[in-house]
Amino acid sequence: MKYSYIAGFLVYCLFNLVLVFASVNIVTKFAPAAAGSGIPEIKGYLNGIDMPGILLFRTLVGKIFGSIGSVGGGLALGKEGPLVHTGACIASLVGQGGSVRHFIKWKWLEVFKNDRDRRDLVTCGCAAGVSAAFRAPVGGVLFALEEVTSWWRSQLLWRVFFTSAVVAVVVRSAMGWCTHGHCGHFGSGGFIIWDVSGGQDDYSFYELLPMAMVGVIGGLLGALFNQLTLYLSSWRKHILHKRGERVKIMEACLVSLLTSVLSFGLPLLTKCTTCPEGDKYSDIVCPRPEGSYGNYVNFHCSNPNEYNDLATIFFNTQDDAIRNLFSTKTIHEYSASSLLTFLAMFFSLAVITFGTAVPAGQFVPGIMIGSTYGRLVGMLVVNVYKNSNVDEGTYALLGAASFLGGSMRMTVSLCVIMVEITNNLNLLPLIMLVLLISKAVGDAFNAGLYEEQARMKGIPLLESKPKHFMRRTQVKETCQSQKVVCFDRVSKVGHIISVLQNNNHHGFPVTDKLQSGETVVIGLILRSYLLVLLQSKKDFQASNPHRDIREQLSRHSMTDFAKQASSKGLSLQDIYLTPEEMALYIDLEPFVNPSPYIVPEDMSLTKVYNLFRQLGLRHVLVVPRPSQVVGVITRKDLISEPSEDTNAHEPSSIGDR
Amino acid sequence: MKYSYIAGFLVYCLFNLVLVFASVNIVTKFAPAAAGSGIPEIKGYLNGIDMPGILLFRTLVGKIFGSIGSVGGGLALGKEGPLVHTGACIASLVGQGGSVRHFIKWKWLEVFKNDRDRRDLVTCGCAAGVSAAFRAPVGGVLFALEEVTSWWRSQLLWRVFFTSAVVAVVVRSAMGWCTHGHCGHFGSGGFIIWDVSGGQDDYSFYELLPMAMVGVIGGLLGALFNQLTLYLSSWRKHILHKRGERVKIMEACLVSLLTSVLSFGLPLLTKCTTCPEGDKYSDIVCPRPEGSYGNYVNFHCSNPNEYNDLATIFFNTQDDAIRNLFSTKTIHEYSASSLLTFLAMFFSLAVITFGTAVPAGQFVPGIMIGSTYGRLVGMLVVNVYKNSNVDEGTYALLGAASFLGGSMRMTVSLCVIMVEITNNLNLLPLIMLVLLISKAVGDAFNAGLYEEQARMKGIPLLESKPKHFMRRTQVKETCQSQKVVCFDRVSKVGHIISVLQNNNHHGFPVTDKLQSGETVVIGLILRSYLLVLLQSKKDFQASNPHRDIREQLSRHSMTDFAKQASSKGLSLQDIYLTPEEMALYIDLEPFVNPSPYIVPEDMSLTKVYNLFRQLGLRHVLVVPRPSQVVGVITRKDLISEPSEDTNAHEPSSIGDR
Repeated sequence: MKYSYIAGFLVYCLFNLVLVFASVNIVTKFAPAAAGSGIPEIKGYLNGIDMPGILLFRTLVGKIFGSIGSVGGGLALGKEGPLVHTGACIASLVGQGGSVRHFIKWKWLEVFKNDRDRRDLVTCGCAAGVSAAFRAPVGGVLFALEEVTSWWRSQLLWRVFFTSAVVAVVVRSAMGWCTHGHCGHFGSGGFIIWDVSGGQDDYSFYELLPMAMVGVIGGLLGALFNQLTLYLSSWRKHILHKRGERVKIMEACLVSLLTSVLSFGLPLLTKCTTCPEGDKYSDIVCPRPEGSYGNYVNFHCSNPNEYNDLATIFFNTQDDAIRNLFSTKTIHEYSASSLLTFLAMFFSLAVITFGTAVPAGQFVPGIMIGSTYGRLVGMLVVNVYKNSNVDEGTYALLGAASFLGGSMRMTVSLCVIMVEITNNLNLLPLIMLVLLISKAVGDAFNAGLYEEQARMKGIPLLESKPKHFMRRTQVKETCQSQKVVCFDRVSKVGHIISVLQNNNHHGFPVTDKLQSGETVVIGLILRSYLLVLLQSKKDFQASNPHRDIREQLSRHSMTDFAKQASSKGLSLQDIYLTPEEMALYIDLEPFVNPSPYIVPEDMSLTKVYNLFRQLGLRHVLVVPRPSQVVGVITRKDLISEPSEDTNAHEPSSIGDR
Repeated sequence: MKYSYIAGFLVYCLFNLVLVFASVNIVTKFAPAAAGSGIPEIKGYLNGIDMPGILLFRTLVGKIFGSIGSVGGGLALGKEGPLVHTGACIASLVGQGGSVRHFIKWKWLEVFKNDRDRRDLVTCGCAAGVSAAFRAPVGGVLFALEEVTSWWRSQLLWRVFFTSAVVAVVVRSAMGWCTHGHCGHFGSGGFIIWDVSGGQDDYSFYELLPMAMVGVIGGLLGALFNQLTLYLSSWRKHILHKRGERVKIMEACLVSLLTSVLSFGLPLLTKCTTCPEGDKYSDIVCPRPEGSYGNYVNFHCSNPNEYNDLATIFFNTQDDAIRNLFSTKTIHEYSASSLLTFLAMFFSLAVITFGTAVPAGQFVPGIMIGSTYGRLVGMLVVNVYKNSNVDEGTYALLGAASFLGGSMRMTVSLCVIMVEITNNLNLLPLIMLVLLISKAVGDAFNAGLYEEQARMKGIPLLESKPKHFMRRTQVKETCQSQKVVCFDRVSKVGHIISVLQNNNHHGFPVTDKLQSGETVVIGLILRSYLLVLLQSKKDFQASNPHRDIREQLSRHSMTDFAKQASSKGLSLQDIYLTPEEMALYIDLEPFVNPSPYIVPEDMSLTKVYNLFRQLGLRHVLVVPRPSQVVGVITRKDLISEPSEDTNAHEPSSIGDR
């Protein structure tokens, strides 16, 4: 007996270790960008910042196999974040028509090869990830729109909705196909993963107080989680992970061993409890039959009529553990001490695991932590009020919502996801309430998990709201220390090279002299375009007459200037020019963006920020106050077609605000 | 027997007529802006167009009492649209701190007295309306954000969510209080209005075809509905309603009579059906006991064991009719001919009723129509496939979703609303599918109901997407026919008056001469501000020296320039000036918007449109191409605080796209 437990323990540890070792090896050696959840990086991408490598094919592969290892290895992390990242990678690959390096190429997909469509596709990919992970199609739509993307458009809504609907139908069909259990765990629980629809569907007024308490605890613990993980990731980034890959691998293996020891060892130390009387809860068997999933796990119990409550949550797949915590009509299944032990251990494990070099999602650990303290509060309520309508499972559900709200600070999407995975619409008002409280409490301490992580990783997200100091700042103060470098319309190659070497600006205004002798700004040219021009050398010309724009453009294909998915692009080191070539000229006009957005120099920075953020710009040119107004564009100029007489149709009802 | 039916018929007609008469009287004589659903007008308001009077206190009163009359009077319309409008009115009144004319005034609420906050409040009000109408808090949030508002911001999401959560908790508490039926119909059905959770929760592959068919029918009928109502409203607007109030009142009364006759008369002409065998569906009693609500209405049947299927839907409150149509496990309750009759009659009634001068929502009629043909398709499926798993109620639900999708063209919000009111999450993928199809089919024919109505009412909504011709248009072409009228910084009162008289522009650029003799544009002044200045006369001055800005501003209070809720504002006719006053001057500088957004004259109209639409602007100044660039604003200028050294922190990961 003793021996078999030791053997079991060793096999358990070994299996987990091998899986985690494989995962961390794949990630560190093959796809470093696949570590973590990937959501902060995707958020950054959609906000306009390309982190190197996050949407590559190899990242996709690393993410998929890495998360099989890390989730299968029983670490305190989830598969949801990685699935979001996986969805985004697939979307991005589709968007660029496959991966050239891996010989997958679809020509017809090249229509998507512009920034805006690619971003839209990636947003759809994120939604697909959540839809598939939680079988929550509407939750996926809302997650993508509330948490991930930075710019809403109504077309985007429609596209994301379409994607999610397709995912829902596919998942549903696959589950129908797997309905007889021959796809393993997939499909267990049906379309609703953790069904609590049989539980409490009404609540009394006096329950609002403990529920609010759950919200407050969620806010506090969530903020604590964010803060601890922030410290730890920062320490890892600056100290631990600088020591090389071997340290990363060893770290992950140690965490795996620790997790195995705790999740096997702690239940061993727990005393078993006698099963409750069977007649009252006839559909739940105690202890559960061998080989099945469910409540009341008999583990290391001397008596066949006993169960080990810690093993019921600890020594189980996470999905089943959550199902057991959410389970209704199982009052007094858990002892408070077991739940507290589990809470403390799992919270610590989740904090430590976060940031190791394996793919890791925070949804499932968050639900585990939240439902544990939620169930604790539920037990308290059951004991204090002695009302048979109160169900501990309901509190576990609210706890899960509150921890996620307190950590990730989402509202609508979390609310819909929680309802979609638990199938009890009657609890909706309560979930909303708890989320509001936990988010408000959490916001008092720090920013959301993903924002904090993004900041730590050096991804400067532009928030939707301008900062306060901007109100009193004029834009000219911000750019007074700048030295603006302009190019003439026809510039010398050598000059361009030297300018590019001497600064790291990404865009340069281009000026031209009119016949009247006046200088005008004819547009903005991007560094990346200049590099392409310098490398291709097609447009070099001897003297400096203007050339035919069309002819020049015809020498380049549409996609020459498109950004590569690897996000690296050309660099100056890739370009080799002879001294003769350096003396030639380029006419830049065909390649400039002829009308970048401009702002007068005394505009307040708040307004510039709004312009920049709302339109998703990269560069705004600051110009002197205009001396003349050519026209005023109002709503009516933008409503009517040009052929109509615009003045005749002005609706009298237009006021001006 | 015969006699009692005639008497009943007369009482029925009379009651309905009195209610509708009251409603149409309130609307035409007291609050004309309360007619219709109000959603197109609110959409317009949030898009930036003030229709006169839509957010007044009198409109609120008219809307509430008017819709009590129109809904209570049994017309083919719903209460949901009016509730949205009601919510918006309340929000707007709160936003301006009460109604001055009605002596309700909260000083502390004046912080909201700016455009943006008022618009946000109105959005929250709309969400509250939907949340309360359908008891669908998340649906309310999404409705407000998908359909009503034009500008998303993440703060707005949070506010709307908060509002809806409060509504949900309040409604839930009120229902708990009314649980024993002493609040009449309120609370019947619980938090889920039409519960179908007991019905079909799985579907077979072969059912996807008929379900897609439901979607196509929904798209076709929805588009037809939009088109017919558009013709009819346009005819009403241009011909019928020009003949005065009496015509409007008579029209509504005639419609009421017609509705009464049809909904009482048609069931009378229908043959009764024998109740099905009781043992199979033991919980549904046939015929229903007197005084209760439910299926199997015994109306004009000779045998007590019979029921009248047309009366079950027609001669009932709409809520109950829908519940009966959605009802599960009641296969073969309706005959196809009854459903077809009802569909044809109700569709026609809904088209005719739409646009009469009473408050009218289109949600419930849409659900009625949709569930009728949905149930028809369901009957077909039951008969063809003979599978006991197929439930007609499920098809009714899908039909309802498809008609609403085909008419209103919403996606996510409709989907969530349908799930929230019917409590069957398992049907979510199907609802999404049906909505996608019906919206796509409908979009092939015309725009959504609210957009079409808004256009017909002369509310020029700016869509989120620029039109195609704009790509090839430069902004200077658009404003080449304009004569720009500028004011000097210090202008003569008489000159201002004559300019305001001679054109109807809403904004005027203001120029000033620098000491160097150069002219610069110092900003834009609004017509409404000029009118306030002219009326107050505080700023008139004898000669034209510049005055101290602060002193000038101190003479005006913050709210002098704020817009009134009545949306009328001042007009030139309100201002009386003596010839001496006409000879005085005003220094306009303190009152200009010092940095309106500017665009260079050769920018493409698409870009200008995006600027205008995304930032919710009213005026954009078109200026000549700049001759000089003072600086280039990039992401890093907007991320860092001004005190830091901005160059030191440039993250190396910023690419440029």
